[in-house]
Amino acid sequence: MNNLQDKALKDRALKVVPNGMFGHLSVKMQSPRTPQYYKRAKGAYLWDYDDNCYIDYMCAFGPNLFGYAHEEIDAAYIEQLRKVDTATGPSARMIELAEAYADQVSHCDWTMFCKNGTDATTMALMTARAYRGKRKILLATGAYHGATKWCTPMPEGTLPEDRAHHIYYEYNNPNSLRTAAEEAGDDLAGIFATPFKHEVIYPQQLPNAAYAHLARKLCDEKDAMLILDDVRAGFRLDRDCSWESIGVRPDLSSWGKTLANGHALSCLMGSDRAKEAAGKIFVTGSFWSGAAAMAAGLKTLEIIKTTDYIERTVSLGNRLRDGLAQVAKDTGVPMDQTGPAQMPLIMINDEDGNRNLSACMAFCDALLDHGVFFHPFHNMFITPAMSEDDIDRTIEACHEVAKLLPSMSLPEIAF
Amino acid sequence: MNNLQDKALKDRALKVVPNGMFGHLSVKMQSPRTPQYYKRAKGAYLWDYDDNCYIDYMCAFGPNLFGYAHEEIDAAYIEQLRKVDTATGPSARMIELAEAYADQVSHCDWTMFCKNGTDATTMALMTARAYRGKRKILLATGAYHGATKWCTPMPEGTLPEDRAHHIYYEYNNPNSLRTAAEEAGDDLAGIFATPFKHEVIYPQQLPNAAYAHLARKLCDEKDAMLILDDVRAGFRLDRDCSWESIGVRPDLSSWGKTLANGHALSCLMGSDRAKEAAGKIFVTGSFWSGAAAMAAGLKTLEIIKTTDYIERTVSLGNRLRDGLAQVAKDTGVPMDQTGPAQMPLIMINDEDGNRNLSACMAFCDALLDHGVFFHPFHNMFITPAMSEDDIDRTIEACHEVAKLLPSMSLPEIAF
Repeated sequence: MNNLQDKALKDRALKVVPNGMFGHLSVKMQSPRTPQYYKRAKGAYLWDYDDNCYIDYMCAFGPNLFGYAHEEIDAAYIEQLRKVDTATGPSARMIELAEAYADQVSHCDWTMFCKNGTDATTMALMTARAYRGKRKILLATGAYHGATKWCTPMPEGTLPEDRAHHIYYEYNNPNSLRTAAEEAGDDLAGIFATPFKHEVIYPQQLPNAAYAHLARKLCDEKDAMLILDDVRAGFRLDRDCSWESIGVRPDLSSWGKTLANGHALSCLMGSDRAKEAAGKIFVTGSFWSGAAAMAAGLKTLEIIKTTDYIERTVSLGNRLRDGLAQVAKDTGVPMDQTGPAQMPLIMINDEDGNRNLSACMAFCDALLDHGVFFHPFHNMFITPAMSEDDIDRTIEACHEVAKLLPSMSLPEIAF
Repeated sequence: MNNLQDKALKDRALKVVPNGMFGHLSVKMQSPRTPQYYKRAKGAYLWDYDDNCYIDYMCAFGPNLFGYAHEEIDAAYIEQLRKVDTATGPSARMIELAEAYADQVSHCDWTMFCKNGTDATTMALMTARAYRGKRKILLATGAYHGATKWCTPMPEGTLPEDRAHHIYYEYNNPNSLRTAAEEAGDDLAGIFATPFKHEVIYPQQLPNAAYAHLARKLCDEKDAMLILDDVRAGFRLDRDCSWESIGVRPDLSSWGKTLANGHALSCLMGSDRAKEAAGKIFVTGSFWSGAAAMAAGLKTLEIIKTTDYIERTVSLGNRLRDGLAQVAKDTGVPMDQTGPAQMPLIMINDEDGNRNLSACMAFCDALLDHGVFFHPFHNMFITPAMSEDDIDRTIEACHEVAKLLPSMSLPEIAF
């Protein structure tokens, strides 16, 4: 694998972008050969500037739901762009999409559109506080709810006051949640939850029903808002809100990523109970009314409703999971596979069960030579644009690499 | 003017969007006939769903720099969309655009791209605090720097802690700024300023040099960051940062709105002095790396650099200003015109010099019948896509409406 062009771009970028790149797309915590820039994307594939082609298991960290450069969705975007996009008011696409979500998502009666997942989680937080003027927000320790002052995982540039009246609980632990709610007392504004525990590095956990139902019950008892942060998982696990299958409906849910298959669109959905409070907060953005992304959202939703994309994604994800379990067995490399089939976290452990980040890094680095892009410590994403052959090629590549892993010199990890 | 279709859309929207619409695009504080939805936009014109066509003096509240549905810019967007847009990494367009801004904007050495103006002001705030670990931020009372927890103009859903360590000063008042800086003492992280005073309703003020130079001097003395919030005015007043013409260079500047002529793109630009601090904060968004908006940004910048668009915009703005001054003289309606020619605030006063919001509302409402969209209390925007004939038709319409104003029954204003 040649990476001269990508290396040259990284060097150029260092001059005009802090650290060359920032945020979740930065590859500075991956192997030095990991490509940072892409010149083409189609379906499940990415091409870097050295013309290497990868089966992309990151799917843009979520947005690539049905395949890159999706012809129908992009055609809907372009058709709307030619009529009206960002203007002095929205187009009727906004109403149509809000109506469509109210039809599709059980707890949803209304929608407010925005551009970042963080916009949607921030609007949820503000709405919860505006609802009864209460202040305390319960959040699971370590859960990612975006990257602005009040929620970024890194403290630099933030103040303790940015997280005032946050109370933390342990995900999936009803006792911990109950204790946090008691601490909030009469001042409980809302409870945040991700649909499953999807932090980097740590084993992913599906939600346990007792925890999820308790969150709902506490919000009912204390007249607070249950907020499901479905930004990362929304429409990947379910055609409805991600907790619908366990019978728990939030008051507010935050969405983004998949809504328009890569076009910039996110939103806060809510129930009628939360509507007056949502109508009180003042939030806005220069491009939030852009009609082209909403037209793409309508087309994306049509495909969500009319195809077997989830079933196909699960089937592909299980094919990968089963194949890798066999690789682990055959090669003796301890692979820890957690999370739902559509969003697997695949990590290599030591024999004592601890994460071996050096091995994860070396493993993903070696896969690049096989045209497979894996992430060493973040959950990955399966797209139905992948073929069975893509999955089988991936398993084969993992087998080749796992066989060699014991003899590889592993990189030192600085974090 | 028929508005049956728009009325029907407003009624539909009330069911699925809080208040039917939210944020700065909501027309709920304008006359009831004011259209909320648009089905087409081209050049300087908007068409509502009742097929009324308006010369649009709001330009999407800024983004419409060169005309709606701009063929070259949209072609650049679509061409890039077909290659790669939102993916697992950015494309080379990100580096090219950051390099182009470093060439074009005097204080800029680097850029971080995002999606909202508020993202860019929040990143500026966090960078200023990350720079030396200091906390105090000076802001002009009433200045708009976005709409999230720490800066939204409405308190609902926010806490006093969201504005911890903010100190307010009076825009254009060096004594007030100096007092605020003294209050910050050794804990001054940064000073925010808009390029001119552009609040709603109040007369706009161009910056006075003593104030702007003092802001720079205080930041130098106290090793703090001067932040210019150029989201609304950037590339409308100047082909450089908006304070370049008065000889004041910020450390950080926030941009959005015009950068890609309506495509969703904003950014934080900074000098090398601020680069290490900017590299420490963790901020990100699902679509911030989208290459299509950056390709549109490159084409927009090319037009900024190679055409006389500012000179033409100023000429059109002055033609409107002069014409309206004559209308005021001829009709005796006291019009207060403030702000730069490109971004005028035009309001009607009482004879005693106080704002007459009812008259502003009635005036803008009546202009709708003439196919002219004015805003009753927010600064407006001129685009070079307007023709001299558009301006002259507008002046004529204003003349007709102003003549009738004394005999109109004025609406009561609830805010």
